[in-house]
Amino acid sequence: MTAMIIVNVPEEMVGDIGRIPVEKRRAFGLGAQRMLWYAEDGDVLVLPSPPSTDFMDYVTGLTGTRASTLRFVIPPPGRFGPDILTADRLVDPVFLRDLGKALADRPVDRITCTYSDLAVTAMASAVGVEDALPGHAFSAQGGDALVNSKAVFRAVAAGNGIPIAPGVITDRPDHAEGTIESLLADGAAVMVKQQFAGGGLGNEILSRAEGVRAAGAGSVVVLADRDAVRRYVSDRWEWLTGHKGHSLIIERYFPDSTTVYAEFVADDDGCVLRGAGEILMEPVATGEVIPPQSVGPEEVAELVETGRRACEPFRLMGYRGTLCADAIRTPGGDLVFTEVNGRLTASSHLHVNLIDRVVGRDRRDDRVFLERGGRWAVPSFAEALSRLAGSGLGYDPHSGLGVVVTADYTPVTGRVTYCAVAENLDAARALEERVANLLSDPTA
Amino acid sequence: MTAMIIVNVPEEMVGDIGRIPVEKRRAFGLGAQRMLWYAEDGDVLVLPSPPSTDFMDYVTGLTGTRASTLRFVIPPPGRFGPDILTADRLVDPVFLRDLGKALADRPVDRITCTYSDLAVTAMASAVGVEDALPGHAFSAQGGDALVNSKAVFRAVAAGNGIPIAPGVITDRPDHAEGTIESLLADGAAVMVKQQFAGGGLGNEILSRAEGVRAAGAGSVVVLADRDAVRRYVSDRWEWLTGHKGHSLIIERYFPDSTTVYAEFVADDDGCVLRGAGEILMEPVATGEVIPPQSVGPEEVAELVETGRRACEPFRLMGYRGTLCADAIRTPGGDLVFTEVNGRLTASSHLHVNLIDRVVGRDRRDDRVFLERGGRWAVPSFAEALSRLAGSGLGYDPHSGLGVVVTADYTPVTGRVTYCAVAENLDAARALEERVANLLSDPTA
Repeated sequence: MTAMIIVNVPEEMVGDIGRIPVEKRRAFGLGAQRMLWYAEDGDVLVLPSPPSTDFMDYVTGLTGTRASTLRFVIPPPGRFGPDILTADRLVDPVFLRDLGKALADRPVDRITCTYSDLAVTAMASAVGVEDALPGHAFSAQGGDALVNSKAVFRAVAAGNGIPIAPGVITDRPDHAEGTIESLLADGAAVMVKQQFAGGGLGNEILSRAEGVRAAGAGSVVVLADRDAVRRYVSDRWEWLTGHKGHSLIIERYFPDSTTVYAEFVADDDGCVLRGAGEILMEPVATGEVIPPQSVGPEEVAELVETGRRACEPFRLMGYRGTLCADAIRTPGGDLVFTEVNGRLTASSHLHVNLIDRVVGRDRRDDRVFLERGGRWAVPSFAEALSRLAGSGLGYDPHSGLGVVVTADYTPVTGRVTYCAVAENLDAARALEERVANLLSDPTA
Repeated sequence: MTAMIIVNVPEEMVGDIGRIPVEKRRAFGLGAQRMLWYAEDGDVLVLPSPPSTDFMDYVTGLTGTRASTLRFVIPPPGRFGPDILTADRLVDPVFLRDLGKALADRPVDRITCTYSDLAVTAMASAVGVEDALPGHAFSAQGGDALVNSKAVFRAVAAGNGIPIAPGVITDRPDHAEGTIESLLADGAAVMVKQQFAGGGLGNEILSRAEGVRAAGAGSVVVLADRDAVRRYVSDRWEWLTGHKGHSLIIERYFPDSTTVYAEFVADDDGCVLRGAGEILMEPVATGEVIPPQSVGPEEVAELVETGRRACEPFRLMGYRGTLCADAIRTPGGDLVFTEVNGRLTASSHLHVNLIDRVVGRDRRDDRVFLERGGRWAVPSFAEALSRLAGSGLGYDPHSGLGVVVTADYTPVTGRVTYCAVAENLDAARALEERVANLLSDPTA
């Protein structure tokens, strides 16, 4: 069993790469290196740039993978440089030749990638490993773009009786203006969403008055009257349509909701639950808690059951792989689904690797996992590990408790991401308090 | 049981209406009047303009509908005038008020429209008859655009093991050029397709050499070398992408194939066969034969069985209503599927009305139906009927044989469309020979 692990970052996930500031692009590249958590002995890894030795040693030390058995293939820098693995790099002829050599004595029977776009399927075809990518035929015809479109989601969910927020998709400014105004005039808040984007970065919240708390979008825009709505739609039209004439989504926004998800793996027989979690929106995704803590077991059961129904049509269209159904639980107690994603999510590596491989599947039900990005300020990954070791807060395989450093953003943001593993939420929060107080640099 | 029949022509079906020449637009409007064949006693018809009395009397005479019981509602002319029922006309406030009045004493329990786009769903919501449109929730979120997209079709078909022509979808000129050149260099012909279009009008055939017969596209473009391919892609890019940046489809083209279809009705329980037929491409669709004559019963059975599998994922996405799977039978004997359409097709009214209601379902298996447009030149519909009566060739309800005039294009093209109903293909061809020789004006 040899896997090829592809740490790709396609535009269908993050939007027009040319418009992403260089620092954020570098951060995406660093985040993508979390894919190292998937590595097992003998795997072939296709990376944007070499991993740091510190990060590689730490991750493989926890997963029990022998780093010396791994083989790395790194394509030449592409149109956007060496930081992220863009489509052009994956079909580069020099890279494809190198990859062919790397695979010559390692028959690949499984491809794990962030997102199966046309570059990944073309690459798989070029080196003759189409069969290692489940759903290749669907993905090779651009199918994954459908699975990840927020507009397709709304149609398919509505068509299958999955509860979604009241709203519309549109490609007409006048329709957008009328819909937004109508919702605001009714006293509701509004969320506008680009069709393709992730982590709340393509969303904006609109409100008639001040005081709405943002979650799932970077900001709240106050539009006092219809004229303000008209100006907003006109000024933001290019951004709202993804600079590519895409339709946009306009939905009622439910303030003060909890964000949850149920993640599945679609195979030939059905959608198999991988796990559920709760996303911490402050105001966009900064971390998560597994299992969800703000909703009860019955609500989690409903999330899983309805989430599976929301994912199943995409499996029946031909998609194979990770399907994650996102939902909010409103203050009124309703479960409202917001999207389905057909790709590895920021949660996937926690469920597959940190929980099931590092901590162990048998302990899953006795632990709370609290992952958080952007809080722990530290000059380098090595320094983070050193402080962790000195404090006694680091993850202990024997007890299955403690802090794991899951991603290294220090070269760009001066932060690492960590996951506190504890016996309950209070203990997890206590752990992260100690990280903040004892291990993190004071920040301005 | 009162139906509301909506004779709409949306852009998702025919492309950018502003780019359609006025004469062609008028022809679309006349073709849409074929929806009158669906009318039953008491129905409410939403039409682009009043039907001609001659056409109305003739059609209702054959279907046995009492014309006096029908109610017509005609919206004010829209952005593109009075000829076709465009989206803007269906949401016109004056029209919606009139329609509300027309429905006040006629509760509608069924909506029959050409295509359930956002204008139809908004109209249904505005007059409170959403429940009369099966799949309204799906259609109201723009779902029908997915069902009718040739790009979505390719992904879903590939994902479900439905045979499709080798090819790609793309939004990149360099990818298009490379793919076209690669197919042509292999000795294959190529078909390029706009994502949204009907009747072969958004398709073009490309060939390296002269001599390829066009079917399913208006013309064959000879591209002698890669430079010619590059120039073609560059010159035609705006047209290929539907003037809206849509992806285009590039497929291998199989010359001298037979075009067939299997049409279904998707309801909550499955896809129910409506009928199969063979499209006459000369070079674009000019008529059809029911049942298919160029393929044998086993091939028709395969067409129906595979066609149903091709349609089923769209039903599971939430679509309800007509689903038609189109395929070609190549000279090599392969059945290759080309698209699925989720709308009433040019064939639907033949199966539902002419065959099952006029001729009678019990005679379906003992008749061949040969419909043909563009051949019978005649100054007016009334004159066509008069000549038909004088010749004794007209349809005879008693024998269930003869010629039916199915559509009236005389105001624009000077032609009517007819359907010859006969006991076999030879007899049907003999009937249309007599129409051509005895009833049609000599043409230049």
